Amino acid sequence: MVSSLEHEAVIISGTEMAKHIQKEIKQGVESWISLGNRRPHLSIILVGDNPASHTYVRNKIRAASAVDHVDERMICNGIAPEKDVDGFHIINIGRLCLDQHSLIPATASAVWEIITRTGIQTFGKNVVVAGRSKNVGMPIAMLLHTDGEHERPGGDATVTITHRYTPKEQLKIHTQLADIIIVAAGIPKLITSDMVKEGAAVIDVGINYVHDPVTGKTKLVGDVDFEAVKKKAGFITPVPGGVGPMTVAMLLKNTLLAAKKIIY
Amino acid sequence: MVSSLEHEAVIISGTEMAKHIQKEIKQGVESWISLGNRRPHLSIILVGDNPASHTYVRNKIRAASAVDHVDERMICNGIAPEKDVDGFHIINIGRLCLDQHSLIPATASAVWEIITRTGIQTFGKNVVVAGRSKNVGMPIAMLLHTDGEHERPGGDATVTITHRYTPKEQLKIHTQLADIIIVAAGIPKLITSDMVKEGAAVIDVGINYVHDPVTGKTKLVGDVDFEAVKKKAGFITPVPGGVGPMTVAMLLKNTLLAAKKIIY
Repeated sequence: MVSSLEHEAVIISGTEMAKHIQKEIKQGVESWISLGNRRPHLSIILVGDNPASHTYVRNKIRAASAVDHVDERMICNGIAPEKDVDGFHIINIGRLCLDQHSLIPATASAVWEIITRTGIQTFGKNVVVAGRSKNVGMPIAMLLHTDGEHERPGGDATVTITHRYTPKEQLKIHTQLADIIIVAAGIPKLITSDMVKEGAAVIDVGINYVHDPVTGKTKLVGDVDFEAVKKKAGFITPVPGGVGPMTVAMLLKNTLLAAKKIIY
Repeated sequence: MVSSLEHEAVIISGTEMAKHIQKEIKQGVESWISLGNRRPHLSIILVGDNPASHTYVRNKIRAASAVDHVDERMICNGIAPEKDVDGFHIINIGRLCLDQHSLIPATASAVWEIITRTGIQTFGKNVVVAGRSKNVGMPIAMLLHTDGEHERPGGDATVTITHRYTPKEQLKIHTQLADIIIVAAGIPKLITSDMVKEGAAVIDVGINYVHDPVTGKTKLVGDVDFEAVKKKAGFITPVPGGVGPMTVAMLLKNTLLAAKKIIY
């Protein structure tokens, strides 16, 4: 699951962890079917994209840009909450925020699984969540600060939520205090090594495509200055191969949970 | 609304502010009725208490203690969300957490109104919320960290959520960084003057009954060492006469909002 280099952070392989979880899910699916149940089926409603017709897509994008986020919300709420494997239905958001069992947004679930399966302690620890999006930052903050004894156990951590309007020097003060930094801001190299406490866990949710001056091509990077931070952190997730594959695994896990009607 | 003493914090009178808001609500009710509408009516469902029969109460308490918080949740969800003036229905919680218009729990609303009506800046500021309860700490943290441009505008502050498992020395580190401290922990003198940054705003949500050695009687105190902290803070709310009367005012405001069907 993890590989260690001398004087460097344990690099958590989301790819390996995801393979492990997918094996667990596969076993779960097989034993579910063996009891006479139907195979779980994931349907995807893709809004605002259609590779079949580029003109259609352009028209849809034009139409979509004329309406606000409420319509996205209407679509999320239009799905039955017990089948809402993205965890975006208002009932799932409400249940998550009340520490009840729910279908949890896959990225937040991925971060939670990475932390707990790696054995990183959260109880009474300082956590910084950089980014306050409703499908990533907010649910992560919710999972980590809440009560470990509630219906859906939380991390019992002290959680600081930062965002675009957190002054950079204040972000640094907070990250320097953090035992765990979770960054989901969409800003390459937002987290540099001077901002990280020795031995801290750094979970990188960022997905950024940047120009690589060495190869001249576009490459995928996260929000963390990986090469420098890995020399200081205790644990770090790479991009790619960290949170990304784990998010896919957790979406599949949600599909199994929904099929088995475990939550509702 | 506020009174200032030399070298001391502005003491925010929740009582005065609440009177002001109740006057606003009264005007709102009168103009609502003058348009031919029915007078707003607040019904209270009191769970687990009944002054008419003490035996009945004891039996109910015994019965209630045998069941868990899920039943309390069922009662909250049993009220129509558009009439849920406490803001505890899952739909109202979900909408609050998604920055949508909702009926907001009155205490959280009271803290928000105290801060904004006093003119205390929140944008990019450090806020500590001590206490993570679902009807107080959580919604306050939600209101303060979220986007000022969303449907239900938030405070755009950097928010740290602390709780019973935050080590005391870590709480102090965080409160010393805070421009605004909101304490809803139920612990007398949890916040002492050494924990407060010069000029910070201190909002005390605590309600504690303690023995007064001077009078020999029981008295009401908050979670803040008021006499010492007021010499260092820039703004402070007293207990009693701070958040309490404002909470009552915000419950009435929610009643008017519900009657006028403004949210739904």
